[in-house]
Amino acid sequence: MRYDLYYWPSIQGRGEYVRLALEEAGAAYVDVARERGTAAMMRMMEEGATPPFAPPFLKAGKLVIGQTASILFYLGPRHGLAPKTEAGRLWVHQLQLTVTDFVLEVHDTHHPLGPSLYYENQKVEAKKRTREFWSERVPKFLGYFEGLKEKSGGAYVTGRKLAYIDLSLFQIVEGLRYAFPKRMKAFEKEIPELCELHDRIAARPKIAAYLASERRIAFNEDGIFRRYKELDD
Amino acid sequence: MRYDLYYWPSIQGRGEYVRLALEEAGAAYVDVARERGTAAMMRMMEEGATPPFAPPFLKAGKLVIGQTASILFYLGPRHGLAPKTEAGRLWVHQLQLTVTDFVLEVHDTHHPLGPSLYYENQKVEAKKRTREFWSERVPKFLGYFEGLKEKSGGAYVTGRKLAYIDLSLFQIVEGLRYAFPKRMKAFEKEIPELCELHDRIAARPKIAAYLASERRIAFNEDGIFRRYKELDD
Repeated sequence: MRYDLYYWPSIQGRGEYVRLALEEAGAAYVDVARERGTAAMMRMMEEGATPPFAPPFLKAGKLVIGQTASILFYLGPRHGLAPKTEAGRLWVHQLQLTVTDFVLEVHDTHHPLGPSLYYENQKVEAKKRTREFWSERVPKFLGYFEGLKEKSGGAYVTGRKLAYIDLSLFQIVEGLRYAFPKRMKAFEKEIPELCELHDRIAARPKIAAYLASERRIAFNEDGIFRRYKELDD
Repeated sequence: MRYDLYYWPSIQGRGEYVRLALEEAGAAYVDVARERGTAAMMRMMEEGATPPFAPPFLKAGKLVIGQTASILFYLGPRHGLAPKTEAGRLWVHQLQLTVTDFVLEVHDTHHPLGPSLYYENQKVEAKKRTREFWSERVPKFLGYFEGLKEKSGGAYVTGRKLAYIDLSLFQIVEGLRYAFPKRMKAFEKEIPELCELHDRIAARPKIAAYLASERRIAFNEDGIFRRYKELDD
């Protein structure tokens, strides 16, 4: 089946977790807004009986699935990126929802006063939020995933088999390295397993090809992971 | 099956969306930490191969399911609170994940600088965040659900049949009325369908019995919805 992915065309953002899964799966997909603009995407959020609240959403045949974690839940077992048992699927989904929570907190580092205001109008607050993020939240979330990876005894977070959660954790490490190079460098000694996982994912042939292609949008200051020098000191 | 629900014993919080579903379903469940303290809950987050990141989580036989939306996704079709088709289940799940995003933003109104700091240390920022929340985010999120309810043509958000998302929207209206009585009173004219839905849910016999019972924890200033007079002006 050919999928249509609808997401903002100029950022990695929440869509990137889906793009990584589609690429690793070798799935046929169209990144609609990148190829044809955003008009169709905007229309789909306004029309029909089941409009998504926001991108990303995926069209799979007649289904339109919104919310990153839900899209991955759907794709995972169909493309060998999640267990097929209910227990296994729910476990990987639970982990992805925890990544979702973390991603929202990453976004809050530069937008503590809300997503509708400009960063420039909340720089002082962003500094405070970022400090708390790195002292409390990063150790808590990444420490959790580091512990799971240790326990798994395999090459991946859930054991010997790759799942979409591993791709998402690659993106988290990659994103934190981009946004907070100094802070992340100092922190990485706490998460050796996740760093090794990051490298293992980056070396997978389909992921490596994707990252080197024009399909991978570069990190930038409109996305979730933003490099603001003043937040990295 | 008898379920064990693990959640903080003194707040509604994220666990309340699960409690409402279990109550409406007439399911047999133990609210473990309320009946026996939090020791077992804390232990489950530290031991075993698949520890949840945070409460709430639900034990259903051998399964342990974490993350509110995932628990509801599991319970829904088993208790007549979600469609049984894949498309229907994914649609209700997508809506619940949008509620999840909104609930995080509700929490941010009193904790814009992060969940680990006290409210007293971020009161100025909380005022700014709350202003943006009510001018931008509440209209966007609740406007979305109001629109769905209008379109559905039925008594509930997804049509003629109750689903767990309706119970969650009841809780959102109830919570906003508690936390921001003045602001919500002024806003309710924008969401007549959701207010009517709220009343319809509150009048359901099992929900009414639950709300009147000691099992329903009162709103308080440790939960998600907090009444701080200075944020309601």
